[in-house]
Amino acid sequence: MSILVVGSVAFDSVETPFGKAEEVLGGSGTYFSTSASFFTDVNLVAVVGEDFPQKHIDFLCERNVDLRGLTTAPGKTFRWSGEYGYDLNEAKTLDTQLNVFADFCPELPEAYLDAEYVFLANIDPELQLEVLKQVVRPKVVACDTMNFWIEGKRDALINTLKYVDILLINDAEVRQLANEANMVKAARKVLTMGPKTLVVKRGEYGATMFTEHGIFVAPAYPLESIYDPTGAGDTFAGGFMGYLATVDDNSEAAMRQAIIFGSIMASFNVEAFSLDRMRTLSFSEVQERFRKFQLLTEFNGID
Amino acid sequence: MSILVVGSVAFDSVETPFGKAEEVLGGSGTYFSTSASFFTDVNLVAVVGEDFPQKHIDFLCERNVDLRGLTTAPGKTFRWSGEYGYDLNEAKTLDTQLNVFADFCPELPEAYLDAEYVFLANIDPELQLEVLKQVVRPKVVACDTMNFWIEGKRDALINTLKYVDILLINDAEVRQLANEANMVKAARKVLTMGPKTLVVKRGEYGATMFTEHGIFVAPAYPLESIYDPTGAGDTFAGGFMGYLATVDDNSEAAMRQAIIFGSIMASFNVEAFSLDRMRTLSFSEVQERFRKFQLLTEFNGID
Repeated sequence: MSILVVGSVAFDSVETPFGKAEEVLGGSGTYFSTSASFFTDVNLVAVVGEDFPQKHIDFLCERNVDLRGLTTAPGKTFRWSGEYGYDLNEAKTLDTQLNVFADFCPELPEAYLDAEYVFLANIDPELQLEVLKQVVRPKVVACDTMNFWIEGKRDALINTLKYVDILLINDAEVRQLANEANMVKAARKVLTMGPKTLVVKRGEYGATMFTEHGIFVAPAYPLESIYDPTGAGDTFAGGFMGYLATVDDNSEAAMRQAIIFGSIMASFNVEAFSLDRMRTLSFSEVQERFRKFQLLTEFNGID
Repeated sequence: MSILVVGSVAFDSVETPFGKAEEVLGGSGTYFSTSASFFTDVNLVAVVGEDFPQKHIDFLCERNVDLRGLTTAPGKTFRWSGEYGYDLNEAKTLDTQLNVFADFCPELPEAYLDAEYVFLANIDPELQLEVLKQVVRPKVVACDTMNFWIEGKRDALINTLKYVDILLINDAEVRQLANEANMVKAARKVLTMGPKTLVVKRGEYGATMFTEHGIFVAPAYPLESIYDPTGAGDTFAGGFMGYLATVDDNSEAAMRQAIIFGSIMASFNVEAFSLDRMRTLSFSEVQERFRKFQLLTEFNGID
C-alpha cells in the first residue's frame, strides 16, 4: 500500500554542539516521506515557495516520492531555525517564518483520494481534518501534533482525534493532552479520545506504544554520535507507517515491528544534519540494525 | 550463594506529591538487603544509633537478613530527608544528619569473611575498599557511588573501581565519572576503569547494561501509581545481585535476567513509602511481573 502524507517542506537552520547547518532541507513532510520511502510509495501533500531549489525536488523524486501534491506558491518557503544544547532531547526554536505555509490549504490531487494509509504530520488540526474529509475511505489514519495546538486549538484537535487510529506524540504532549502527570493514566485517557493506538516518542529513551492489548516499550538504538536530532520524530513516524503500509497490517504484532523500524530510521537520521544520512542509507543497513535491536532487548524466560 | 552488603541503615523523612512519611525506615543497606532477601541470604554490615527501634530489627530478621554485622554505636541513627516534585526522577535533599554514620568503620564478623557475592552500597570509596580488603576472595563485587564521591574523592573512587566487577550508577553519574556527554562513549570509558559490567540506572526510563558483549536495554515497568521513588536504585541492585547470587552465575544471559529482576523489585518498591511494599510482597508477584515484562518488550523477528 502507498501512504498519503500532509506536512511541511521547509528550510532549516540548525546548530548543535557538534556543528551547524544553514538553510538545509527540512520539514515534517520531507522527513516523513523520505523515511517511509524506504518501505513503500509515498504521496506528499505540501507547499513550497518559489525559492525552493530543483535539487531538493530531484532528491525527493529519486526517493520515489510522488510530488503531484506538492504545490509551489508565490513567496518564500517555510523556514525554521533552532539550536540544541548537550541535552539533545529538546530543541530551542530561534525563529519560525511560516511564509507560504501560512496560507497552506491542502488540496489533494485526484490520484491521492483513494489513499488507505494516511499520515497527518504536525499541522493545524483543522487542516488535518480537511485532508481527512477529502480522502474517500482511509484504512489507517495516523497523526502527530504539538503543544502549540494542544494549547491553542484544543477543541479542533479533540475533534480531529475522533477520526484518528494512531496518535504519535512525545511524552510531554501526552501529559499535556490528558492533563495527567502519570504516563500510564495519561495514555489510557488519550485512548478514550479516538485513537486506538498511542505511540509515545521519548527521544533517547525510545518509544512506548499503548493499545487495548497492553504496553510495548522499545529502547532507542544506542548511538555514539548524534549530530542533529531535527526530524527524528517524523523520521520515526515514516518508518513506522512505511512498515505498516508495506505489510498492509495494523495488528499488534505488526505495530510492534513498526515501532522498531521507526526507531531504526530515526537512529540513522540523527547521525547527520538535515536528511543527509538518508541520502546514503541502504535498506540492508536498516535490516542489519533490526537484528541488532533484537540483541539489545532480548532476555530469556525463567523456568 | 549468600550476599554481603555494606551500606547505610537510616531514618528517612520524605515528601512527594502523593504524601509524606516521617522518620521511616530507610538507607541503602536496608533497601538492598530487603530486596535481595527475596532471592537469597543476605549478610548486612552497617551501623545504627541507640535510638534504632526493635521493630525495624525484627523486620530485617523476618526477611532473614543476617544482622551479625549490624553494630549499635553510641548516638543517633543516620537521618536523611528529601522531597520530590512531579518529576519523580530526582530527589531534592533537604537535610542529612550523618550521626553514627560519620565514624562508620565497617568491620566484618568472622562469619562474613568468605563472602562470594559482595555489594558495596554508596558509601565513601575508601570504606568500600576497606571492606573488600577484609573479604578473603570475593567472586563478584558490585558497587554503587554518587556525584559527591565522583567529585570529592575521585582518586579513591578510581582506585576502588579497579577491584569492582559491576558498577551500578545512574546516567548523570556515568557522564560525570567519564567526563563525556555521550552515554555509549562514556560507558566504554568506564569499562576501562576496572568494572567489566556497567549498569546504568535511568529511573522511569529503565536500565541499560554495557558489557564486553554489547548493550542490553530494559524498560522500567510502567506503573500507574508511584508514591515514593526513595530506595529504588538500591532495591534494583538488591534484585539484580540477589538473582545473580541465587543462580551463582554472572554470564551475560544471567545478568540480563538479573536486570529484569532488579527492575521488578524497584517497580514494587516505589508503589509505597519506605519499604512498605516489601512487607506484603510475595515471590509469586515477582514472577508474575517477570512474565509481564516479557510481553512488554517482545517483538518478532523479520523473515
